[in-house]
Amino acid sequence: MPALVDRLVVVGVGLIGGSIALAARLGVAKDVIGVVRSEASRRRAIDSGAVEAATLDLGEAVASADLVVVCTPVADIATTIADAARACPQSALLTDAGSTKQAIVESVEAQLAGLKRSPAFVGSHPLAGDHRAGPESARAELLEGRTVVVTPSDATPSEITERAAAFWQALGAEVTLMSPAAHDAALARTSHLPHLLAAALAGATPADVLPLAAGGWRDTTRVAAGSPALWRDILLANRRHVLQSLADATDQLAAFREALATGDAAAIEQLLEQGRERRDAVGD
Amino acid sequence: MPALVDRLVVVGVGLIGGSIALAARLGVAKDVIGVVRSEASRRRAIDSGAVEAATLDLGEAVASADLVVVCTPVADIATTIADAARACPQSALLTDAGSTKQAIVESVEAQLAGLKRSPAFVGSHPLAGDHRAGPESARAELLEGRTVVVTPSDATPSEITERAAAFWQALGAEVTLMSPAAHDAALARTSHLPHLLAAALAGATPADVLPLAAGGWRDTTRVAAGSPALWRDILLANRRHVLQSLADATDQLAAFREALATGDAAAIEQLLEQGRERRDAVGD
Repeated sequence: MPALVDRLVVVGVGLIGGSIALAARLGVAKDVIGVVRSEASRRRAIDSGAVEAATLDLGEAVASADLVVVCTPVADIATTIADAARACPQSALLTDAGSTKQAIVESVEAQLAGLKRSPAFVGSHPLAGDHRAGPESARAELLEGRTVVVTPSDATPSEITERAAAFWQALGAEVTLMSPAAHDAALARTSHLPHLLAAALAGATPADVLPLAAGGWRDTTRVAAGSPALWRDILLANRRHVLQSLADATDQLAAFREALATGDAAAIEQLLEQGRERRDAVGD
Repeated sequence: MPALVDRLVVVGVGLIGGSIALAARLGVAKDVIGVVRSEASRRRAIDSGAVEAATLDLGEAVASADLVVVCTPVADIATTIADAARACPQSALLTDAGSTKQAIVESVEAQLAGLKRSPAFVGSHPLAGDHRAGPESARAELLEGRTVVVTPSDATPSEITERAAAFWQALGAEVTLMSPAAHDAALARTSHLPHLLAAALAGATPADVLPLAAGGWRDTTRVAAGSPALWRDILLANRRHVLQSLADATDQLAAFREALATGDAAAIEQLLEQGRERRDAVGD
């Protein structure tokens, strides 16, 4: 069986980009090349084993690409995709791995509309983040069984969406299709707000009680170990939805406060029960 | 070497009580007997292997006890200890495994003061909870390397504190001494508030976005799977400290909201950085 992709270019070789590269090399892509931003990143990407070849030259790397996956921090994605679009074959497919979608998709589509000839683009988001980062944490099975949301806009031809979906499925992922706006509204609640709450909880914990932090504190704050710069940009890129979901969580906390202040045992139990039901619906 | 304890009675054979029993049977105690509240619990405690013998009769079980550890839900602890105190030898040591301490210690000391002859009591709290529950989850190594807070009051003789500490250390735990009030103030921040936030986050997540809940949401909400009835009582027993720590977390969330609403990237990053620093201080 021929490889699905002749030449795959992964821009940004960290946990996600490195894992995509590792998985693709198992038969999905004939050639895989990484694009990095510095000589230090190039060495790190190669020493980690995540890619066999890496370059700082985006234009050169994508010149004969079939598929380009941009896995940089969200603030750089739209510009990087537009740069790649100017240098890659018109037949190439461009996608990304960003945690927010609407701003990226709108920016990319506006920039590509200005080009005389343009390759196709559709946004993607593999739900496989981790508080670990860097190519050293990459592993071929990271996407195995995970969800990748592919986010066609009204302007995306269905064959482009299908091509992106086929790639992610070939890496072992399950694909869900959503509009960029619906993606951002949902991820605000399932990823961005949890990060904000975890950071707020950790930040509000006085240092002198940390020796008494056990499993519950560790679990609840775990994601707060993620990069502040990356998460700053994610929260900003999705601020409207994050603010709405923060308002809903704040209402829930106000209900807890009221129930505790008045000693209303039934109301406290009902709030805890509501949380448990939602938690149990997801599983470990 | 003789066993540290001749007869250990564990009241309430769930995750914590069962694990204490399993660990104590490895040489710390000669005999271990479980006390349960129903015939169904008795069968479950024995079938799980957590204890070899269990009875519904507290008075009979403690009649020749050297050490009684009460591992029931917090709302039942003080009464159970007082009941045990009336039936056990005066030489016995009574302690517990409750997640809150001040209300329990005050209630027990008041009740024991009314007895003509009374065994000694000091409160304990093994920081080894888990969202799993029941004797089936019990394991001898649960306390290995974990912290147990022992909470002497002003009235507790130091030899009693030392006797309790020696028992927990023999099970592999590290002992920290704190007053009951200091314990409750600290645990509000490291355990009770995290539980409340996790439940609020899970409860505020609309059911239709749950299929997109990935690792971050799972970690951040994990403890919300715990028993609503048990946690209702823990939050109520420590409501003053929980309300204070909730107010501090709410302030932190308000700072996030303000920074997001005004698009203040530096402030968002600083808040995330503060969370990461505290998180990194604890480790995985």
